[in-house]
Amino acid sequence: MSDYVEGKTRWWGWGDLDQRFDVENRENIMPFLRQNLGMALDRDRFTDPELEEIDLPPCRINADILAGLEKLCGRDNISVDRFQRVSHSMGKSYRDLLRFRQRRVERPVDAVVWPRDEGEVVELLRIAEDKNIALIPFGGGSSVTGGVEPLAEGRSGVISMDLARLNRVLRVDATSQTAVIQAGALGPEIEEQLNAHGYTLGHFPESFDHSSLGGWLATRASGRQSTGYGDIEDMVLALRMVTPRGVIDTRKVPSTAAGPSVLQLCVGSEGVFGVITEATMRIRPLPSVVDYRGLIFRNFAAGVSAIREMMQQGMVPTCVRLSDRTETALAQAFRSTTGSKWKRKAEDAALRFLASRGYSFEDGAFMVLGLEGEREEVEFLRVGILRLCRELGGFHLGTSPGRQWYNSRHETAYFREQLINWGVMVDTLETATTWDNLLHLYGEVRSALRSSLEEGGGKSMVACHVSHSYREGASLYYTFFAPMAEEGKEEEQWERAKRAASEAIMEYGGTISHHHGVGYEHAPWMRREVGDISLETIRAVKKTVDPAEIMNPGKLIPPR
Amino acid sequence: MSDYVEGKTRWWGWGDLDQRFDVENRENIMPFLRQNLGMALDRDRFTDPELEEIDLPPCRINADILAGLEKLCGRDNISVDRFQRVSHSMGKSYRDLLRFRQRRVERPVDAVVWPRDEGEVVELLRIAEDKNIALIPFGGGSSVTGGVEPLAEGRSGVISMDLARLNRVLRVDATSQTAVIQAGALGPEIEEQLNAHGYTLGHFPESFDHSSLGGWLATRASGRQSTGYGDIEDMVLALRMVTPRGVIDTRKVPSTAAGPSVLQLCVGSEGVFGVITEATMRIRPLPSVVDYRGLIFRNFAAGVSAIREMMQQGMVPTCVRLSDRTETALAQAFRSTTGSKWKRKAEDAALRFLASRGYSFEDGAFMVLGLEGEREEVEFLRVGILRLCRELGGFHLGTSPGRQWYNSRHETAYFREQLINWGVMVDTLETATTWDNLLHLYGEVRSALRSSLEEGGGKSMVACHVSHSYREGASLYYTFFAPMAEEGKEEEQWERAKRAASEAIMEYGGTISHHHGVGYEHAPWMRREVGDISLETIRAVKKTVDPAEIMNPGKLIPPR
Repeated sequence: MSDYVEGKTRWWGWGDLDQRFDVENRENIMPFLRQNLGMALDRDRFTDPELEEIDLPPCRINADILAGLEKLCGRDNISVDRFQRVSHSMGKSYRDLLRFRQRRVERPVDAVVWPRDEGEVVELLRIAEDKNIALIPFGGGSSVTGGVEPLAEGRSGVISMDLARLNRVLRVDATSQTAVIQAGALGPEIEEQLNAHGYTLGHFPESFDHSSLGGWLATRASGRQSTGYGDIEDMVLALRMVTPRGVIDTRKVPSTAAGPSVLQLCVGSEGVFGVITEATMRIRPLPSVVDYRGLIFRNFAAGVSAIREMMQQGMVPTCVRLSDRTETALAQAFRSTTGSKWKRKAEDAALRFLASRGYSFEDGAFMVLGLEGEREEVEFLRVGILRLCRELGGFHLGTSPGRQWYNSRHETAYFREQLINWGVMVDTLETATTWDNLLHLYGEVRSALRSSLEEGGGKSMVACHVSHSYREGASLYYTFFAPMAEEGKEEEQWERAKRAASEAIMEYGGTISHHHGVGYEHAPWMRREVGDISLETIRAVKKTVDPAEIMNPGKLIPPR
Repeated sequence: MSDYVEGKTRWWGWGDLDQRFDVENRENIMPFLRQNLGMALDRDRFTDPELEEIDLPPCRINADILAGLEKLCGRDNISVDRFQRVSHSMGKSYRDLLRFRQRRVERPVDAVVWPRDEGEVVELLRIAEDKNIALIPFGGGSSVTGGVEPLAEGRSGVISMDLARLNRVLRVDATSQTAVIQAGALGPEIEEQLNAHGYTLGHFPESFDHSSLGGWLATRASGRQSTGYGDIEDMVLALRMVTPRGVIDTRKVPSTAAGPSVLQLCVGSEGVFGVITEATMRIRPLPSVVDYRGLIFRNFAAGVSAIREMMQQGMVPTCVRLSDRTETALAQAFRSTTGSKWKRKAEDAALRFLASRGYSFEDGAFMVLGLEGEREEVEFLRVGILRLCRELGGFHLGTSPGRQWYNSRHETAYFREQLINWGVMVDTLETATTWDNLLHLYGEVRSALRSSLEEGGGKSMVACHVSHSYREGASLYYTFFAPMAEEGKEEEQWERAKRAASEAIMEYGGTISHHHGVGYEHAPWMRREVGDISLETIRAVKKTVDPAEIMNPGKLIPPR
């Protein structure tokens, strides 16, 4: 089944129509946002679009070709209908969500095809090359970098190749703890099939419900538990990728010295070399203990030190996130205010006690610590990490705030839909650097964002957390908010902020993306990111495997 | 200083002249070998060669060019003398050691140059391209795959570029636990400099004394403690590589989603794209506890299960090696027989006790278990791993056999020199696969080697150990022995055995090399290892960064 179903999917935004963010039981969030953004949030700037409002040009692919595709993949597996074309033409970036609301789908795909096996993928590439049609591999459509939007000038058409039919776990090898998984499988499909065998992949990005294995691999994704389970590039043992020149099938071994890593050349290739069809992934037994806790530090720097120490002492948690002051205050304002009068009185007392010890949710840095695994291992890590955090000034808040975060971790994407309708520009971006540079980079990117957002004299809010940690450094994940610019200037306002942040990231030693990927949004910084010679090698590989340049043109590789 | 010094270095074999293997205090090894190989071992088939016995053609590089190189690098940093040319013309494979003893240096380099900084490397590449001279990057010269031997037909000459002058640790970042290290630094040079800051790289291959960081990176090396510290490709954060088209300088971040990994394209490139000049490496604090132990299992399969369990339960040792029956018996025969009568009586009693429990060094599988780190962590792992091994049938022999292995781990390379002189063909090869396939591959490669070695009706000995382990599989390291074929047929005998093993590795799901690399010895299997399209991508990168094909021609990439 396709993930995109008319009447079920919020095609102009995130997730399913039956899920939306409930602001009712959160009394503090609206006053907090009003105050910090200096806007009323009392009327809709945008309404959700109707499909019929989108101005959609006719499909450019002629009937003969469409008939050929139908013959290849079956009548049910090709579509030129409005819902499928529109929903497959953009991802979920702020720019995308904005344009959907502005009823602008400027570069629609001409058709959507759902191949049923690798053989059909091979044949689709052949037809596309023959007919000068661009192909865009499509997994869950959750790209926030423009990865699935056509940039295909000079083509006779664009097909979105939705891999939703390739959604099976083909083989579970319990001895080696690996599984062969088809690339179109979405997060929940993967976990459901693996869980039935007692295993998990351990990859849980925020987009989990609506992103696929192939997409994760193609964009070098990370999940919320990647600090423990590893990033997707660490989890992949081997993969198959169909290119216009043939299939790359890397050897299924745990490690090899047989030359440069073609595997790690395919990972991160964003569809520009070919289509990943399946991969052999490392899997883990389902943890018997899942233990999430909250801690608070007096400031961000103290929390950063604690994470660095735990990583470098080899006490690696499954998940550790540390919010800066703004994000800590935001998360506090975000908390549910349901519950009895007595519960709230107890919470107030707890806050007063914390304040007496010098901790507050207005000024402090909140940490989520997640440990998953077998009882003994989790206990060993919990004791060690909590002791270390205490020594470094952290205050342990117990399991309740950890559980709260864990249970509400998918909600914010829905809130964003509401905020944009209210006229709030809200987006995220992320980077990574080594520990010695982390606080410096943190400050510089934050300043760059705020300067840009407040250029016209308005207010803004820039929140940040450490999202994934390594022995030698960590990633920084920013969420930024500002009142939307006047009508017609919204995109420009966002581009300016994004550019300011990207320039600061490049200038101060970050990477242009830690886990969102490149797409076309980050492509202009690729030259500074990897350098001229590296870019030339990537171009050379592209030319070798896709000489007609039909695969996801315009992405990843900047024009010369 | 160069590692190669006339009168100090055993240029025709391993290590320094003042080190040789002492067979005196090992009463059991000679009878063991005589019996198992069916040969007397009582006379030298070869004598060590003298430099003057080597038939060396004159240097083909003309005086003008040499003068230019001398001007660039300084008079002391270029040499055409016999010792330097001969010693830089081959590595340390069995084929190399055999040919040196046969006084055959068939493809000598014309000159050796020691650049003093990256700028000189850049200039050397420019001159080489201009003058159609092939360049071979040279680290410690320990290649066993032909990696440093010229295969440069149609060139006007070949220069070995010895990176010995680039041997410094340039920067230690204690906060991020990284160090910037020049590529020519040999194992001891790296450790000495890092140890002074309280750190270690944790990379200790058998070649440690005579191999360099650049060589490790160029060949995707692993060290004996790689199970815990990671393979070299896991340790590298960033690197600089000079190619004929410019410098690749990958971004110094802990992780990135900015496209395909050019870093992991350079790692394993074996000098065919360019010369690695420096790298930012992950470093670790020196362990406060170093704990090596021995265990014995009733058979290889039982020991393999134990390793798989410890890896998959997350109890990862720094080092775990498991010898098969042949290697266990060989190692037992190899043990020192010095010490008092009472010590030997005690040992005999211990062996009788083990026998009564069903364990023997003739039939069992010996395991070395190494744990390095902080006291608490080592204790946690030791308790868990020993309990697990006991449950799976392992018998703990205490620290003494572990220490013995640790202390004698560099000796066997010297014994090999003696064995070859006695007319024993002795070589090693290695592969890796997933756990589900490990015992199968183990048996097939072993059979293929024995069949080949015993083709003429003689005896042979094929020993194997699991050398590096991962959650999803492990490597297999073979050492094979046979009486040398008659004069003039020695190389062919070895080629036949090597080919038989390589075919079995390919047929039964191994990799052509887990950590020795490709060079020219494994290049014929690269097509089967990585496939046609992957090879084409590697060729495309080569063509882009080295269009004149001056960089280590004939290595890694098989002819079309």
